[in-house]
Amino acid sequence: MNENPGTEAFASHSARLAQIANPKSEIVHYGDDDPLPLDCGVKLAPFSIAYQTYGTLNAAKTNAVLVCHALTGDQHVANEHPVTGKSGWWETMVGPGKPIDTNRYFVICPNVIGGCMGSTGPASTDPATGKPYGLDFPVITIRDMVRAQARLLDHLGIPDLLCVLGGSMGGMQVLEWAATYKDRVYAAVPIACAARHSSQNIAFHEVGRQAVMADPDWCQGRYIDEGKSPRKGLAVARMAAHITYLSDETLHRKFGRNLQDREKVTFGFDADFQVESYLRHQGVSFVDRFDANSYLYITRAMDYFDLAADHGGVLANAFTGTATRFCLVSFTSDWLFPTEESREVVHALNAVAANVSFVEIETDKGHDAFLLEEPELLATIGGFVSAAALKRGVALSGEGELP
Amino acid sequence: MNENPGTEAFASHSARLAQIANPKSEIVHYGDDDPLPLDCGVKLAPFSIAYQTYGTLNAAKTNAVLVCHALTGDQHVANEHPVTGKSGWWETMVGPGKPIDTNRYFVICPNVIGGCMGSTGPASTDPATGKPYGLDFPVITIRDMVRAQARLLDHLGIPDLLCVLGGSMGGMQVLEWAATYKDRVYAAVPIACAARHSSQNIAFHEVGRQAVMADPDWCQGRYIDEGKSPRKGLAVARMAAHITYLSDETLHRKFGRNLQDREKVTFGFDADFQVESYLRHQGVSFVDRFDANSYLYITRAMDYFDLAADHGGVLANAFTGTATRFCLVSFTSDWLFPTEESREVVHALNAVAANVSFVEIETDKGHDAFLLEEPELLATIGGFVSAAALKRGVALSGEGELP
Repeated sequence: MNENPGTEAFASHSARLAQIANPKSEIVHYGDDDPLPLDCGVKLAPFSIAYQTYGTLNAAKTNAVLVCHALTGDQHVANEHPVTGKSGWWETMVGPGKPIDTNRYFVICPNVIGGCMGSTGPASTDPATGKPYGLDFPVITIRDMVRAQARLLDHLGIPDLLCVLGGSMGGMQVLEWAATYKDRVYAAVPIACAARHSSQNIAFHEVGRQAVMADPDWCQGRYIDEGKSPRKGLAVARMAAHITYLSDETLHRKFGRNLQDREKVTFGFDADFQVESYLRHQGVSFVDRFDANSYLYITRAMDYFDLAADHGGVLANAFTGTATRFCLVSFTSDWLFPTEESREVVHALNAVAANVSFVEIETDKGHDAFLLEEPELLATIGGFVSAAALKRGVALSGEGELP
Repeated sequence: MNENPGTEAFASHSARLAQIANPKSEIVHYGDDDPLPLDCGVKLAPFSIAYQTYGTLNAAKTNAVLVCHALTGDQHVANEHPVTGKSGWWETMVGPGKPIDTNRYFVICPNVIGGCMGSTGPASTDPATGKPYGLDFPVITIRDMVRAQARLLDHLGIPDLLCVLGGSMGGMQVLEWAATYKDRVYAAVPIACAARHSSQNIAFHEVGRQAVMADPDWCQGRYIDEGKSPRKGLAVARMAAHITYLSDETLHRKFGRNLQDREKVTFGFDADFQVESYLRHQGVSFVDRFDANSYLYITRAMDYFDLAADHGGVLANAFTGTATRFCLVSFTSDWLFPTEESREVVHALNAVAANVSFVEIETDKGHDAFLLEEPELLATIGGFVSAAALKRGVALSGEGELP
């Protein structure tokens, strides 16, 4: 990793900072008189939510689908990313004719509170100081993220959701939605997630946070003010996390022990192996698009997530009386959120006689499978959401409700 | 992790540096006329090997047992550590009346070349400059470590070994011994290891190295000269690595989501969870006893290990004609060196009709199980080595050969 980022990196750094205050997205602002109450006790005000929408809300308002993004995701689920120029992070899933068909559904994807693409987070300006919050930003939870999303639905005049879906941290938000806003969720699709963050996952997050905080350019969280950026620390954090998103099998299949543009090892510390080169690239490109403090806050929100603990220690209590239709999905080679953790949620849902289906998909692609062109995933979710829509009387694609 | 290490940390820092040039161990020096040829092409001279011995070599010289240490181990296998004051790292296995019974066997444990406890490594003085080598130290391999150990046996007048054993990187050395010095190894016990380092393991090592090299106090490897120490970077590296030594189940059983000395989460970035506190402690205490550049070099040696590649791409070729008796051990919950990798070695040994036994031990303790009080491990190895000794005519404990 280069100590001095090049011109290109500085350009994307500026592009990224610009998205914090003036995102290339819809944005809704809430004033001092309209705070967001947080689990930590703080009332956050003012605050903003940046979001993207796709498709059209029908007259009956029955076709709204909320997509919740993962740790390092954002609202740009199905359009070109304003910083990286890359296509949306879930274009296999969301778009015209896709499983989440934007010709049929009205899709909303907000940036989470604590994020760095326009929703209020640690890089936003603290009205008390006129400077970026840094560590003065209150610690947020998955429930706080979901509370903010419910406020966004109010703003959009949407009483309830046909479906809320997401993978990884997105799946945690789906579970929280189903528990906290039972009447507003017709169908829920938590993918590759868990009802609580495991000890091993907390451990990996802590390594990432320590890597960021060990970087002197982190400046105790005040790096934006200081004109610096903890690039090396955040890159190391991303590298460690990235390994957990892939399976051992994927790494073996994609890279094995193949060398990078060389015939022999160099007996040095260059990236001799393809897997080293790949990881370094993952680290470096991540820092061009993400805020280091947001990384601290969002990982912390995941660590704190424990739905059973919030409901008297019994997970089933979180879902008592639910009428939501659930479809859970896990992947055989996902070791970050193993199938067993989805199964625990299924057991809890069974205990309250909920309407639940569960699919474990056979793949060697690890946790990342939820983001990939995985035919069984696309077919499962497309079918499940379409069935829920039919049951609810939402018109088929191309019929009726389109403008 | 505290930015300014306290008095205690400085004391152990000095104690650690003292062990580099003047270890509290036996040491053998080789002069300029007696270099160690390395795989990278360099002839290392002068060089030293620091080692511990336990027990007595019998007159027939048939009872020598070589213990090979793992990545962050050293020669203090069964005595108090001169820096930490803790007991030896394998006292469950090695000592009077233990499975590797020092009343019966003459046990030798050398510090590896590239290490930092008296054997020549990157913290040693480079004769060309009078300063520590730093990154001018040549990159070493597992075979180089083993070559140095063979030289030590020559020095001790030991023609061959009753047994060579070790876990993790120690197990890699055992395999290398069996391949390179077939006539000098009567029995071999590779534990929790593999014949080549996997893509995922290279990836984790690369994260650790990048964490060290990202620390400005690493000073491009010249930190000793500069009176600095990349404490934060090395601690992050250790934290990431430490997760891989434990299983998900162990972390869940030991820590779960338990909080550290508090009733509620603090909505901050302190170590709220026990697993965070534990990991931070692992990181901080490691830097008091280990050299950061040694960490780079030894992880690299493991990455480069690929016994099949060194033998025409066919692992069995490494063992052609072997008369060594093998006992391989793996652990069900070890995801760093999964059972499958031991099984590949067994298949290769079967292909050359070697004398091999293989035990997969059921445990939830992960890779670290090889260092722990694991009854089946101790019984397996004690029985195997004793049977080999009997076959070779080594007197029983307490008989004949004792002084």
